[in-house]
Amino acid sequence: MVGLAFVGSPMPKVKFEKISPADFFYRNRDIAGFSNPSRSLYMSIREMVENSLDAAEIGKIPPSIIVELREIERVKGDVCIYRLKVEDNGIGVSAEHIPKAFATVFYGSKYGYKQYRGTFGLGGTMAFLYGQITTNKPATVISSTGGDKVHKFVLMIDIMKNEPRIFEHKVLKNENGWKGTSIEFYLEGDYTNSKAKIIDYFKHTAIANPHASIMFIDPRGRLYYYPRATKKVPEPPVESLPHPVGVDVETMSRLLATSKERTMLSFMVNSFQRVGEKSAKEVLKLAGIPGNKNPKKLKHDEVTALVNAIKKYGKFRAPDPSSISPIGEDLLEVGIRNMLNPEFLHVVQRPPSSYSGFPFMVEVGLAYGGDIPPSETIKLYRFANKIPLLYDERADVVWKVVNERIDWSTYKVPRTAPLAIITHICSPKIPYKTVGKEAVADRPEIERELLAAIREAARALKLYLSKIEKRTMAVKRLNVYARYLPLIAKFAANLADRKKPPKIDKLLEPLGIDKDLVEKARKEMLKELEIE
Amino acid sequence: MVGLAFVGSPMPKVKFEKISPADFFYRNRDIAGFSNPSRSLYMSIREMVENSLDAAEIGKIPPSIIVELREIERVKGDVCIYRLKVEDNGIGVSAEHIPKAFATVFYGSKYGYKQYRGTFGLGGTMAFLYGQITTNKPATVISSTGGDKVHKFVLMIDIMKNEPRIFEHKVLKNENGWKGTSIEFYLEGDYTNSKAKIIDYFKHTAIANPHASIMFIDPRGRLYYYPRATKKVPEPPVESLPHPVGVDVETMSRLLATSKERTMLSFMVNSFQRVGEKSAKEVLKLAGIPGNKNPKKLKHDEVTALVNAIKKYGKFRAPDPSSISPIGEDLLEVGIRNMLNPEFLHVVQRPPSSYSGFPFMVEVGLAYGGDIPPSETIKLYRFANKIPLLYDERADVVWKVVNERIDWSTYKVPRTAPLAIITHICSPKIPYKTVGKEAVADRPEIERELLAAIREAARALKLYLSKIEKRTMAVKRLNVYARYLPLIAKFAANLADRKKPPKIDKLLEPLGIDKDLVEKARKEMLKELEIE
Repeated sequence: MVGLAFVGSPMPKVKFEKISPADFFYRNRDIAGFSNPSRSLYMSIREMVENSLDAAEIGKIPPSIIVELREIERVKGDVCIYRLKVEDNGIGVSAEHIPKAFATVFYGSKYGYKQYRGTFGLGGTMAFLYGQITTNKPATVISSTGGDKVHKFVLMIDIMKNEPRIFEHKVLKNENGWKGTSIEFYLEGDYTNSKAKIIDYFKHTAIANPHASIMFIDPRGRLYYYPRATKKVPEPPVESLPHPVGVDVETMSRLLATSKERTMLSFMVNSFQRVGEKSAKEVLKLAGIPGNKNPKKLKHDEVTALVNAIKKYGKFRAPDPSSISPIGEDLLEVGIRNMLNPEFLHVVQRPPSSYSGFPFMVEVGLAYGGDIPPSETIKLYRFANKIPLLYDERADVVWKVVNERIDWSTYKVPRTAPLAIITHICSPKIPYKTVGKEAVADRPEIERELLAAIREAARALKLYLSKIEKRTMAVKRLNVYARYLPLIAKFAANLADRKKPPKIDKLLEPLGIDKDLVEKARKEMLKELEIE
Repeated sequence: MVGLAFVGSPMPKVKFEKISPADFFYRNRDIAGFSNPSRSLYMSIREMVENSLDAAEIGKIPPSIIVELREIERVKGDVCIYRLKVEDNGIGVSAEHIPKAFATVFYGSKYGYKQYRGTFGLGGTMAFLYGQITTNKPATVISSTGGDKVHKFVLMIDIMKNEPRIFEHKVLKNENGWKGTSIEFYLEGDYTNSKAKIIDYFKHTAIANPHASIMFIDPRGRLYYYPRATKKVPEPPVESLPHPVGVDVETMSRLLATSKERTMLSFMVNSFQRVGEKSAKEVLKLAGIPGNKNPKKLKHDEVTALVNAIKKYGKFRAPDPSSISPIGEDLLEVGIRNMLNPEFLHVVQRPPSSYSGFPFMVEVGLAYGGDIPPSETIKLYRFANKIPLLYDERADVVWKVVNERIDWSTYKVPRTAPLAIITHICSPKIPYKTVGKEAVADRPEIERELLAAIREAARALKLYLSKIEKRTMAVKRLNVYARYLPLIAKFAANLADRKKPPKIDKLLEPLGIDKDLVEKARKEMLKELEIE
């Protein structure tokens, strides 16, 4: 807010201040999704569950997560103070990192080119912060990395300093070799008005993470249990080098500054994925930079020229998808069938693509009929890095593509149709529009991939709907033959004064009409005539 | 992202890192609205213009702002490098603050209880940051506070350190006593696809800020000029004490820590607005805190008890509205009439209310007919602190209230209607959902006020539509009389074998039907009969 930063004389004096990131999010918790008691409760559960999933997957452990929400005190109306407890069997957090990891904003593990659910170094801390400012109670973290010790911390966040305040640190014996993390804190929330979203969240999370076991005990004592459907844990995504396309001057400068390469040629080949010697040479030539130049000696303008040359050079291979972890067509299909039991389902997995140097991949399922209720609006199920996105649907790029970029009538979809679209975007870096991670931004590259995937699925749907239409038409036509040919035959016999009508079986047979159909048609007709 | 923060042994080692706020927003520029070249260009212009408006208003100067956008180089398709220059006649920035104010994230003037357009200490810096990473060019800031010197800075942002990098600092003589700020920087953008939004932005800004003169020269050399409609600058909002309702434990602790009061009773009366001795005593009693206790000696649990007591005590007067600056019913009405020329207009200004200790006020205009094209969707014009919000409409609380909480058929609004709703929310703290300041969160208190205001306006609209309906019905009915009474009279005369029909004028007169109407009805009927 440069706008506040004006000081004049004899103009009004304005005091200046720099605030900590924790203070920023304390003052602006709406941008992290903590707008009201029901959404804040949802957000808190979500952040904790996602941390737990990451913590298990990073160690290739099939996640087992237990979430318990207990009502402590009614505040007003549906708003209560709750105790939220989340326990996982992940790899645990080492004692030295616990306080900062849970009570410092923007503190997290290396922010690299690797796919995780968490993104901002913020989510868990933000939930703690929200709990703290609504209840003034500290949070408890118990964790073990599997050694002979279990660490217990009771802590709060010093918001102005963006630092942990430790109230208690106990070291316990780890008798059973337990590994995992258990978190407990208090927060103001509204379960009555968030229950539907929370249960949906668990249900959809289970679909996208069939290797996880999730148990939720709600404040009314109900147990929601989503058992593991497979023990196969997906390969943890591998950290990879950045893809050159979309790397900006800032990233380029950082790579140059930290590189140990001696020449620009080896820098290009070894600092990026998908850059071979040939393309490195071509790009450097385009930028006017000698291949044997020392990366540390690049001038400001040369950095700019290099980035621009990469932008103009259109011949890099697609980014390495090993740093992303898609759900996979098979699992996606099984998940959707279980959830919606559709008549028609078409799943599309697009090849990996990239934006701003980050690879990403789009998976789409288009389901029609079955348990999907007919509606004028298309039902969306959005996932990003295997987490369901349930809020702010209309701000999401998927909504834009489905509702503004596709004319569904060209795919023979009626105005009111039982149509659902399931999308999954995975990337080491999802471009969320909000810190609350609910809506994905309309980066042109992602929009394009989504559009291509949904269109491909829509074409398959169109074929299916055409077939159904044809079949319906054919049945109608056959019915006409089955009804009237016997009558015509009878009429012809009468006209010719014959006793028996000519045999029409041979006429009907090649059309696929048998005696049963004829009989059925006759009865139908009689019924209609009687009614009339 | 606590989820990344897991370290185990012999589990995979994870490196830890704390990043600067500038680095956070560099990595996550989508959450500040910088998602694609067209929206980023729009955002950059917006942030600069809003800083300029604030800089003038704070000094009670009628703002004069000149924005010039020039195309420098075509990158690809519609994407170009532009030079953006924004000049204002505000109070200027003193030299010592220029570098940090423009090149440090979260650095701004005191974040207090005062209404401004800017909110996050982020906007202008974010635009610079975006320009820097897309062009690698420094920004130029020229400013004077009106003394005998003008300062010129050429600078960039050190993103990893969140610090300014100064390339040049020149002190020039201020020959003409100029006061103001001129900013120039380069950025990648797409004017072709953002032009409509940018022009709308200027147009709507002019409506909400009739005291401002705004000139925009676009890359095609076109001049858009919005002259000042009034010289009356609104009173700059006054900084005020926080209202007790909604103050949380964090704010309470800070107030207690910095208070110079000696007793809790005087602390309560002097640290908040709208707290008199009587209510202070009652609240303290409710919290179980003696009135003569030293504020510095409050225990942790007492702070919690005090905040809870305030929540439960329901008798505070409404917050002082002097820290907010509404547009006002008259100006709003004039603005809407100029923009939409509606048949029907009803403007509602709600009394001030508060959320989380911040006062806010809602103003609503409901316009019908005129230049508003009939549509199935209700056209929304959203403003917050006198700035138009043009993106992410569907994520805004206004959209929710208008489309999900109100059944328009109960107000006699047909499905396709020429209906527009203009909303203005003003507050020292607008709860934006995104750092890009485009959508306001659905804080329950704000949602409630919006709902009340729109419903009130809708009731007026219902009356109007009922009147129209009645009038139409009445005209129809009169028409029937006008048509058939003369015929019946004639018919009766024929029947009675009279030459002249009885005089019906006296029958028609009390119904408000004169000769002209009778004649008109007769001609209409003739025409209809002829056609048949």
